[in-house]
Amino acid sequence: MEAWKHFNPVRIIAKHDARKELPQILSHYIDMSALLSPRSDTPQAVVLYSLLLVTSAGMIRRKTADLLMADIPATWSVCEISPEPDLDILDQKIQELREQEKSKGKILAVIALGGGSVMDSAKAIACGLQTEFKTPLHAWLRDKKELNVSPLPLILLPTNAGTGAEITPFATIWDNKNKKKCSLAGEACFAKVALLDPSLTLSLPWVDTLYGALDAFSHALETLWNTTATPMSLSCAQTALSLVMENLPIIEEFPQNIEARSKVQEAACISGMAISQSHSSISHSISYPLTLHYKVPHGLSCSAFLLPIFDLVEKENAWKIPLDNDFKKQLRDFLKKYAPHKLVRDFCNKEQTQNLVHEMFTPERAGTFVLNLNGNDIKNILENGFTS
Amino acid sequence: MEAWKHFNPVRIIAKHDARKELPQILSHYIDMSALLSPRSDTPQAVVLYSLLLVTSAGMIRRKTADLLMADIPATWSVCEISPEPDLDILDQKIQELREQEKSKGKILAVIALGGGSVMDSAKAIACGLQTEFKTPLHAWLRDKKELNVSPLPLILLPTNAGTGAEITPFATIWDNKNKKKCSLAGEACFAKVALLDPSLTLSLPWVDTLYGALDAFSHALETLWNTTATPMSLSCAQTALSLVMENLPIIEEFPQNIEARSKVQEAACISGMAISQSHSSISHSISYPLTLHYKVPHGLSCSAFLLPIFDLVEKENAWKIPLDNDFKKQLRDFLKKYAPHKLVRDFCNKEQTQNLVHEMFTPERAGTFVLNLNGNDIKNILENGFTS
Repeated sequence: MEAWKHFNPVRIIAKHDARKELPQILSHYIDMSALLSPRSDTPQAVVLYSLLLVTSAGMIRRKTADLLMADIPATWSVCEISPEPDLDILDQKIQELREQEKSKGKILAVIALGGGSVMDSAKAIACGLQTEFKTPLHAWLRDKKELNVSPLPLILLPTNAGTGAEITPFATIWDNKNKKKCSLAGEACFAKVALLDPSLTLSLPWVDTLYGALDAFSHALETLWNTTATPMSLSCAQTALSLVMENLPIIEEFPQNIEARSKVQEAACISGMAISQSHSSISHSISYPLTLHYKVPHGLSCSAFLLPIFDLVEKENAWKIPLDNDFKKQLRDFLKKYAPHKLVRDFCNKEQTQNLVHEMFTPERAGTFVLNLNGNDIKNILENGFTS
Repeated sequence: MEAWKHFNPVRIIAKHDARKELPQILSHYIDMSALLSPRSDTPQAVVLYSLLLVTSAGMIRRKTADLLMADIPATWSVCEISPEPDLDILDQKIQELREQEKSKGKILAVIALGGGSVMDSAKAIACGLQTEFKTPLHAWLRDKKELNVSPLPLILLPTNAGTGAEITPFATIWDNKNKKKCSLAGEACFAKVALLDPSLTLSLPWVDTLYGALDAFSHALETLWNTTATPMSLSCAQTALSLVMENLPIIEEFPQNIEARSKVQEAACISGMAISQSHSSISHSISYPLTLHYKVPHGLSCSAFLLPIFDLVEKENAWKIPLDNDFKKQLRDFLKKYAPHKLVRDFCNKEQTQNLVHEMFTPERAGTFVLNLNGNDIKNILENGFTS
């Protein structure tokens, strides 16, 4: 028998307007009354405790962040995150937050409102604020120190539907100084709660909706090609694929359809559950250099070569579990229709991608693919992607 | 959109000979060195801490319990549990264990080695040893006191494949004094680890293997008929059903096939994951009086009327999610082949079951079925079961 494990302690709460339940949910993890109590032994009332909101410029501009904070009377700090978070910038932000705690009060919990970059940064901060390291991400990701902390309670509200970051124990951090993608990974990166509120995704433009859905699709499909797949991750993967295929076309036609939005958000979370057990594989391995060198958005780069990989798996009959032919045909038709292998051509050409093969071949990801590939095989995959 | 939740913090570790990893797994939850340290401030060495093994007569007789304990040098208490655990007997055992702790040392963790009855009892004991109530099960189940404890670390090793108790936050306890089935339910009933070792199921006689598989099948099928089903529970349910249908026939022919044993054990755990979110429904509601009055084993009683319920759901097209016809045909063929609706006739006749309809109709279970049923409808289901 194949050994397998499963562990995911994140509490998922999915509901229309779920964000309005944040105060009640938070009260399970921290003493809310402490947020309001000034210190009584000093002449001026000094706030002892505070909350941290990690979010994006867009959420601040659209006032969604303000609305969320208005529901909880507390001293808030706000940390604004740019896409593809940089290691050194995050370390600097952690130091600034520690400085702010001296006046604003100790941070009791971290709430994230945003996409993958925001949620991943929030994980790093929830861990980083709990260590003695001056620059914790440098310590964990460059110096390879052990991630052995008890993180601050973390509640994640995804505003996209794709990365599954709300449920995984990973945070993608970019070490731009060394041109490297890093992954902060470990049980300390699990959130307490993933709060799925589909109305937060209603304003997502089509291109971001599509890239997100392709990211979720990639997580699920890669699970079905992964030597580390487990009975639970295989189950989640199939469910997520069906949900994306059924509902993305509805959103394409009716962007305000909350039901379809909720289903793709479900799919993203459930495929995140899959990779939280069996990690991503070859397609993600190919993607990181594309994002680093050509700024290909993550959801597009990780799905860009799914079609030629699909064909290779099918040719070699290397599926981790048998799938029926109808289902496989639907999967392939979906990839042909949304054609990430064509969309990626707006960012880079074939030669540019093939020049990066040496960077794409990371053993820890490519090595869990169901087939043993070498650099030439990856070159062929890229070739086939550009000619499909 | 339909609101849904998911939370299951149990760590699943499935592996051939997984039981041999118990010492290492336990060391994540307790200080193992404390188990060996005599108290230094007394003239005689007094043991301060101990471990508790909850198990069955069979496991003691077959020495499996001894082998497990031999791997961990500690002072052990052993608690032997009979099938369908009785509320008052469990309360008495908890009091005895508290008494034993005075000489053997405080119990640091509870390990269960057995089937559903053993695992459910272990949950009750892991909670019961941590309260001030003198008779905790009486307090929680008869006096309806809140189950609000931090249980002892609990590690469950199922020796059957069926109940899914290793993963659920429920414990079925029988209040024989009041002829009532009770459910101790709540997050305190989650184990730390479900340790799936298929070799523990190799010696299961066919009848227990079958009843276990039918129990898992029932959990999964009822999820597909349950108004409280969630995307995660629906996903788990479909996976579990396929695993049972594929592998039970292999075990029937080759009882020592460890691969097939491991797959049915997986199915039981995964269908337990499903009901840990959406509970069981109508078929379990029908089953409890049959077990109480006619000693129908649980796996048989909860599956005995799946076939007529299946036909009713199909007639009304009331499936919670659309399933393809091939899959539905396989499900029905499986029920026809293993025929729990016929096997139950060894325990009771139609009139006897129909006289219990008033007890079968518990709103908290029957009420979550996808169709609104009244007592007459249940009578018809029983009738159809006996004539199928």
